[in-house]
Amino acid sequence: MGSIFGQLFRIATWGESHGGGVGVVIDGCPARIALSEADIQIDLDRRRPGQSKIVTPRAESDQCEILSGLFEGQTLGTPISIMVRNKDARPSSYEEMAVKYRPSHADYTYDAKYGIRNWQGGGRASARETIGRVAAASVAKKVIAKLAPDLEIIAYVKSIQDLEANIDPLTVSFDDVESNIVRTGDLDMVETMIKRIEDVRGEGNSIGGVVECIVRGVPPGLGEPVFDKLDAVLAGAMLSLPATKGFEIGSGFAGTQLTGREHNDPFRMDGDRVSTTSNRSGGVQGGISNGEPIIFRVAFKPTATIMTAQDTVSTDKEDTTLKGRGRHDACVLPRAVPIVEAMTALILCDHLLLQRVQNIS
Amino acid sequence: MGSIFGQLFRIATWGESHGGGVGVVIDGCPARIALSEADIQIDLDRRRPGQSKIVTPRAESDQCEILSGLFEGQTLGTPISIMVRNKDARPSSYEEMAVKYRPSHADYTYDAKYGIRNWQGGGRASARETIGRVAAASVAKKVIAKLAPDLEIIAYVKSIQDLEANIDPLTVSFDDVESNIVRTGDLDMVETMIKRIEDVRGEGNSIGGVVECIVRGVPPGLGEPVFDKLDAVLAGAMLSLPATKGFEIGSGFAGTQLTGREHNDPFRMDGDRVSTTSNRSGGVQGGISNGEPIIFRVAFKPTATIMTAQDTVSTDKEDTTLKGRGRHDACVLPRAVPIVEAMTALILCDHLLLQRVQNIS
Amino acid sequence: MGSIFGQLFRIATWGESHGGGVGVVIDGCPARIALSEADIQIDLDRRRPGQSKIVTPRAESDQCEILSGLFEGQTLGTPISIMVRNKDARPSSYEEMAVKYRPSHADYTYDAKYGIRNWQGGGRASARETIGRVAAASVAKKVIAKLAPDLEIIAYVKSIQDLEANIDPLTVSFDDVESNIVRTGDLDMVETMIKRIEDVRGEGNSIGGVVECIVRGVPPGLGEPVFDKLDAVLAGAMLSLPATKGFEIGSGFAGTQLTGREHNDPFRMDGDRVSTTSNRSGGVQGGISNGEPIIFRVAFKPTATIMTAQDTVSTDKEDTTLKGRGRHDACVLPRAVPIVEAMTALILCDHLLLQRVQNIS
Amino acid sequence: MGSIFGQLFRIATWGESHGGGVGVVIDGCPARIALSEADIQIDLDRRRPGQSKIVTPRAESDQCEILSGLFEGQTLGTPISIMVRNKDARPSSYEEMAVKYRPSHADYTYDAKYGIRNWQGGGRASARETIGRVAAASVAKKVIAKLAPDLEIIAYVKSIQDLEANIDPLTVSFDDVESNIVRTGDLDMVETMIKRIEDVRGEGNSIGGVVECIVRGVPPGLGEPVFDKLDAVLAGAMLSLPATKGFEIGSGFAGTQLTGREHNDPFRMDGDRVSTTSNRSGGVQGGISNGEPIIFRVAFKPTATIMTAQDTVSTDKEDTTLKGRGRHDACVLPRAVPIVEAMTALILCDHLLLQRVQNIS
Repeated sequence: MGSIFGQLFRIATWGESHGGGVGVVIDGCPARIALSEADIQIDLDRRRPGQSKIVTPRAESDQCEILSGLFEGQTLGTPISIMVRNKDARPSSYEEMAVKYRPSHADYTYDAKYGIRNWQGGGRASARETIGRVAAASVAKKVIAKLAPDLEIIAYVKSIQDLEANIDPLTVSFDDVESNIVRTGDLDMVETMIKRIEDVRGEGNSIGGVVECIVRGVPPGLGEPVFDKLDAVLAGAMLSLPATKGFEIGSGFAGTQLTGREHNDPFRMDGDRVSTTSNRSGGVQGGISNGEPIIFRVAFKPTATIMTAQDTVSTDKEDTTLKGRGRHDACVLPRAVPIVEAMTALILCDHLLLQRVQNIS
Repeated sequence: MGSIFGQLFRIATWGESHGGGVGVVIDGCPARIALSEADIQIDLDRRRPGQSKIVTPRAESDQCEILSGLFEGQTLGTPISIMVRNKDARPSSYEEMAVKYRPSHADYTYDAKYGIRNWQGGGRASARETIGRVAAASVAKKVIAKLAPDLEIIAYVKSIQDLEANIDPLTVSFDDVESNIVRTGDLDMVETMIKRIEDVRGEGNSIGGVVECIVRGVPPGLGEPVFDKLDAVLAGAMLSLPATKGFEIGSGFAGTQLTGREHNDPFRMDGDRVSTTSNRSGGVQGGISNGEPIIFRVAFKPTATIMTAQDTVSTDKEDTTLKGRGRHDACVLPRAVPIVEAMTALILCDHLLLQRVQNIS
Repeated sequence: MGSIFGQLFRIATWGESHGGGVGVVIDGCPARIALSEADIQIDLDRRRPGQSKIVTPRAESDQCEILSGLFEGQTLGTPISIMVRNKDARPSSYEEMAVKYRPSHADYTYDAKYGIRNWQGGGRASARETIGRVAAASVAKKVIAKLAPDLEIIAYVKSIQDLEANIDPLTVSFDDVESNIVRTGDLDMVETMIKRIEDVRGEGNSIGGVVECIVRGVPPGLGEPVFDKLDAVLAGAMLSLPATKGFEIGSGFAGTQLTGREHNDPFRMDGDRVSTTSNRSGGVQGGISNGEPIIFRVAFKPTATIMTAQDTVSTDKEDTTLKGRGRHDACVLPRAVPIVEAMTALILCDHLLLQRVQNIS
Repeated sequence: MGSIFGQLFRIATWGESHGGGVGVVIDGCPARIALSEADIQIDLDRRRPGQSKIVTPRAESDQCEILSGLFEGQTLGTPISIMVRNKDARPSSYEEMAVKYRPSHADYTYDAKYGIRNWQGGGRASARETIGRVAAASVAKKVIAKLAPDLEIIAYVKSIQDLEANIDPLTVSFDDVESNIVRTGDLDMVETMIKRIEDVRGEGNSIGGVVECIVRGVPPGLGEPVFDKLDAVLAGAMLSLPATKGFEIGSGFAGTQLTGREHNDPFRMDGDRVSTTSNRSGGVQGGISNGEPIIFRVAFKPTATIMTAQDTVSTDKEDTTLKGRGRHDACVLPRAVPIVEAMTALILCDHLLLQRVQNIS
């Protein structure tokens, strides 16, 4: 259970880090959307390992194949199946994992849940699982472009450990973010962040940080009360990403320090558009978009795999130690950026479609 | 859309603050669970207005009626319909709201979404909507008591504005929390918090804070990867509550300041139980419970209704001002505590049932 | 489980024949649809007991109350909760049922499934459960009237036992059907059918028959391959009605006697509309409506309750006998007609909404 | 939409007859079920073209590949992705179909729905789509074997056109059915049926028939009232199969000729098991299995593709004619048998799992 997401633009992802591959089936993509494997590959390349010197050097090209749902370059309205084969597996790197649980990974909990796990790697808990999401989101973005052409989703690294970027979410551009391998919008901070990641990696250690995401050009009215409030769905989606520990929208936790008088967003007309003069709501009020930019932040913990011995237990329930091996990200943030965008796109696509049936007059 | 929640223990809530009433239908409650209206009333009384001097003085008794699904004091396995009639409506308090949008409420967004709204009150966006959730959660707790008798869910006020309670989540008891009208576990902080709420209310202003929730006695193995990770579902559920702006589990946002070496939770055997010597994971690893206490925090913004004039716009799109009226909570935190617990209970009940079908050997 | 139906126009029904009442929550009704309790009452009156001399004489007025989702005579887009209180319960009629299973009823199977049942009546398996469906369908018909104004759904009694009505589905009108208490469109057959029902009732026996349903004015394109084909969803819905044993669309079982050459429906242009010169497909091809009338038939078995002693077993697993008591329909067909229409309306409403998101160009 | 099926054992199928392939993702298969590609291949071979002289001679080997969800021969509890590549495509056979609609196929309705279709073949409406269902059902049968070891599902050809087999559903065996290429259990009828199919094919014509399915060893208690009654779900599933026009369970349409006295199934104790002395209910009462064999029939129309010219219209809306081409089944019944069994297995697996959460005491 749990591998199906969305209500109208529904995706079913599959795959472990080691095995035949990973992929996704999209059920509910509208017909006659132009689409190609190259469109999807662009997004997959942004999340793949080996793309820069600060991410894991694993050599995974992650070439996608569209198996169904497409005809002469257009979607058919039928399920779109997308597959990426697994390659470059080195199961021998993982043999010790067969008998010991890696701390703060999902090894123990998978055993507790299923009584079995694929110990050759992270299995279904591997970040490799997000390939299916990113591929599906490429398609979702095509749908969004039809339904809300002005909508743009930009995520970026807001902080790495205590290093905080100074970024104006209202003006930051996709190119700003992609111009540097950290994927932050604050160019003055790039080298410092790179150095920090490299230093930490040099110590066999790891770090985390915060990704911020801004969505501009959102039409008002998206989001379904009560349980499918737009912010609720975003929160759930972000916490479904590996290594996340928190989500906040608009004023977030800091907003609890303010009084209502300080916190409320006054309305003013902006031409004939209803607007707010501040945006502590983060673009969502009562779970529904109000037309202001949606802005939220996601906390990513330091990567669990570190290259020093740690206390742990064995599968036969003895205390022992385990030292990390293999090729891992010392900091997942640069690769987390496209994944945060992907989940955001999946949700906005779904809610744009949902809104088409809510207001039929 | 959006008023149905859960996969096996599924609830459909309904109702606006003004109208016939509010309620819930539970589809999927196992049969032969002892249940009575009195069981549910206990929980509804914890969330109702007028329960203490620091909450809204509205006189709503919120008496529930079980309409179906029960026979001779036991659940039938069929849908359980629970209703609470609305009372004490004062639509005249709200007339100005027919033509003006209250800042940081959902008035404008409902109009944007639906082209219509019940302006006599908060409508479906009112916190009154949570009655259905609390009632359903009373039933969920009965199911939990059968499936995981040691499981206990305790939420409490962790902070109000900058006033932070000092509470040990491992030992705090339900009685500690219920012993005071703020519903914090730090008895030394009670009077200070009460005074703060009363002062702020005296100024016609409002404040927010943080509710923390601890779940002890959780069996390992709960949570469904990928999209229905236990922390993901909790995050979504908490952000579906009115006035929430953030969610974090375990180390949360603060965890991004640590390195992996500092952050990882080492495993050690505790008798024949696999345990961790720290709990920065917050009881969930890879989206699945690991048997340690689940601990998370939810940020509640200051109440949007304040008693001073604020800039806003009218429904005919003119700039104007609006001053809050009526009887509102200056701080929702004390009443938010049982609601956070309720959503937690709904999720754990659902996931205990889900786990029964995952591991059938 | 199993009391929620529909994908976008979703309903959750609740209630047993004996208990507080029965009802439905509709989640997903579009906003700004004119609606009143009187609208719903019209349909409920067509299914209620005591409406004519050939149906059960139980005195149930089945007055509905709309509890939410409505404001100033229009839908809000929020859940619509509709309730009908139970009345006229005579539990003493049913005491013997506490300890004996009625043959071909659901008494034994409910016990087998749940380990408990409400033996005061049919409980959730009672035809009274269909009140929620009929009430929801009244709302669905309002939505249909907006989205497909020419669409009309007419069901009628096609046969009672071996008495078969001669009806032209292309011309039969709602008024034809409602003009007689049997609800058949063949006025020459009315008295014969009435006499048959009265004779059978006089013998303490019961009979069944076939309801046919025609849907005219259906836009082409409705239905979602693969599992939600329009005919598949109709079949599932019809077999979900109490006492049904079969469903066939278009040529149905008789179509298996033909060759492809005889069976295929040739296409011809009818002005600028693609049409077929025969309709053995029954208006659905590949699971999708083709614009021709949808026509299907539903088999209803003879009522299980008969007034003669039958072999059965007791709840303590002894062979015994049981004689039917109480006031029951000797033939459910006249009251089945509005219920078949109701399920059809729920499905067409749902699929009209679904089609709005499939084809967005 | 519409390509996801099931509640706990959920499958998402994908693929068109022409394109990369067809397949399925299973989300919700319990962990630690022994499984191999060979297991699945057995079932795929029973439905594939070219298996005998009376089915289409298309050379499709339909080799499956399991891409995920498996580790060392056991299911992981994670999604199981199964793929079959398309081969032997002859798009040139279909060129005329690009501009003309085949009568009683889904060409026109797909165009009406989506504004696009893959005209190289039947696309998503092709019977090739059922590969995903059959593959998933192979896995479902493994789960059933764990949860209800005595349960056996046997479908067979009950009739071809007017040729009706004489089969005792209580004793017919899988080997009886598989012993002949028609897949009927009446060995005296085999040659007659084969001759009829060959004769009809020789005329470029086609025929249909009825598949009957018996499920023995079903535990009582399966099925979820109201909308997910076991017979309702079976009816929906069967009508979701290509070329089906009707479904009936137990007494079916013929049951409408009986009185209640003739139709009711008396209960008698059979040792300590509650049983019925007749089975007009078809093993399901009130939507829930009663422990008697489940028996139902499915009507399959004559294959739509015939080798003679038929009236039709072109995509530019002109009257024209079209003559069938290519290699098709003159009678789908022999290949329909494993598909009917597959859908039955998917449903029973799902409901066995559902029942585990309904009755937890």
